[in-house]
Amino acid sequence: MTDQQTARGLIAAANRILLLTHVSPDGDAIGSLLGLHWALKAAGKETLPVSADGCPDTFRFLPGSNEILKRVDDTYDLAIVLDCADLHRAGKPAESLAQPPDLNIDHHATNPGFGRLNFVYPDAASTAEIIFDLLPALKLPLTQPAAECLQCGVVSDTLGFRTANTTAKVLATAQKLMAAGADLPRIYDHALNRRSFNAVQLWGQALNRAVLDGGIAWTTIPLSIKQAVGYNGKGDADLINVLTTVNEAEVFLIFVEHENGEVKVSWRARPGFDVSKIAQLFGGGGHVSAAGANIKNTTLAEAEEKVLAATRQMMNASREL
Amino acid sequence: MTDQQTARGLIAAANRILLLTHVSPDGDAIGSLLGLHWALKAAGKETLPVSADGCPDTFRFLPGSNEILKRVDDTYDLAIVLDCADLHRAGKPAESLAQPPDLNIDHHATNPGFGRLNFVYPDAASTAEIIFDLLPALKLPLTQPAAECLQCGVVSDTLGFRTANTTAKVLATAQKLMAAGADLPRIYDHALNRRSFNAVQLWGQALNRAVLDGGIAWTTIPLSIKQAVGYNGKGDADLINVLTTVNEAEVFLIFVEHENGEVKVSWRARPGFDVSKIAQLFGGGGHVSAAGANIKNTTLAEAEEKVLAATRQMMNASREL
Repeated sequence: MTDQQTARGLIAAANRILLLTHVSPDGDAIGSLLGLHWALKAAGKETLPVSADGCPDTFRFLPGSNEILKRVDDTYDLAIVLDCADLHRAGKPAESLAQPPDLNIDHHATNPGFGRLNFVYPDAASTAEIIFDLLPALKLPLTQPAAECLQCGVVSDTLGFRTANTTAKVLATAQKLMAAGADLPRIYDHALNRRSFNAVQLWGQALNRAVLDGGIAWTTIPLSIKQAVGYNGKGDADLINVLTTVNEAEVFLIFVEHENGEVKVSWRARPGFDVSKIAQLFGGGGHVSAAGANIKNTTLAEAEEKVLAATRQMMNASREL
Repeated sequence: MTDQQTARGLIAAANRILLLTHVSPDGDAIGSLLGLHWALKAAGKETLPVSADGCPDTFRFLPGSNEILKRVDDTYDLAIVLDCADLHRAGKPAESLAQPPDLNIDHHATNPGFGRLNFVYPDAASTAEIIFDLLPALKLPLTQPAAECLQCGVVSDTLGFRTANTTAKVLATAQKLMAAGADLPRIYDHALNRRSFNAVQLWGQALNRAVLDGGIAWTTIPLSIKQAVGYNGKGDADLINVLTTVNEAEVFLIFVEHENGEVKVSWRARPGFDVSKIAQLFGGGGHVSAAGANIKNTTLAEAEEKVLAATRQMMNASREL
């Protein structure tokens, strides 16, 4: 029996299914969570769609976003973890699992395969794409709300079809999701093209601090500028996607200061550099061209210095190859 | 005989074919010009690909961009006009035409059909998409360089698959072009996603000056900040596309100060407001949702005050409807 057949049997036998996604959820985390939620619902299953950090405002336009739970307060007979490179990424709700989760569906290359059954395909640009591919084998229907949520995942993780892993298959998937009723321009607009005015003000402050040196474009977001503009978000307000447009750079970095002496670092790279390895040096991970790490017990200046030094070293080593 | 069959016969009989596109060429103008150029070349034809304003730096990554001519200096036996809503849009090179052009290939709804044969399809999101659809009927091969150039047109005119006219067919076309060897992420990156570091610094300065008031988000770009960051471009470095993402606003404005006592104003609006009418008040024009005007003999502060007053009046009138 193939893993897909086993998974189909497990789902068929289950009544209430726990769905977990990662902390600080992005469009693929929420889109995958709700996409599978709708497909399971249409097959007559009850679900517990859990996101430790709830649903960011950006994704509240998705059907079912108000059904997302922050904790696991109920029993379930099957657990599926989505878009988590490791189980810890699911946060506190993962602690409720008495055993490895039944299904681990993910597209991160570093995923160790922590589930009983693992559907980990690093070639997929998004976890939503994997779910879309699995639905027929799992005998789950692609309903219109499921298609909308999965489209959000496809669009988000490719930043609107512009990351290097946007294959012809990604476009084919988006097209089939459109055919199933997912309005691409609307989903694109909501998922990638809306932000609050104070996020834009944060961009202004942070871009004024941007530096270009030795092929690296980077900036820092101290707590003080978040406070100055009244920005309450945890992240960088997607500013990394602005930095990565800088023509003169090949590697891009953002340092976001958090309240607990923690600095969140995000790396991006043009082809030819592997930033996942540097992220691992700092206890993080990710993909060749996009990675991140949380550095604890540090100041912003200290993190900036150490990370830049390691990044420069990696770039020099790559250039010598 | 259908128009397509007639066109195929004309092309088969021709030796040297003139290709014209519009002034101030964008990615669809250049992509269509070079896409058809490569397909014709592969069919053994000579071409004269003409763009009155040459090829913008942004599109120099396209194969054949160095073969683009600015004038018609040679004889030809067939003329094809691309992506021009009217013949004047082709600029001075159109004056060399002794008669209506043989083929008029375009997707603008206002195109009057000025060619002997007209392939004008307003449902298409780009002229490149129409060329892609016509190639088999014209017995022209979709070579790899042709696919790359057409992909540039498809991506550019949909702003990377995010305009409202991005249909499932657009995605299918992009996918087929990828299958024919057009590297989507690379083309997307070059066509839409690159800017100089000082453009990003200009964003920082200008976003720090941004204001949100009464449903309008606006900012000003004085000459002094362009000088401070060393930005030499004439426009707003596409900053209007950042402002329009502000969730809390419905109308968006940028004021760019020029050297000659002139201020260039750009308006954008969400559905429900018509900014072309305000632009007309200031001697400009445009569409319901995107318009512009050049105000002469003014200071930045004066232009800002007058334009904001007129814009607020329009918004109040629209809200009362």
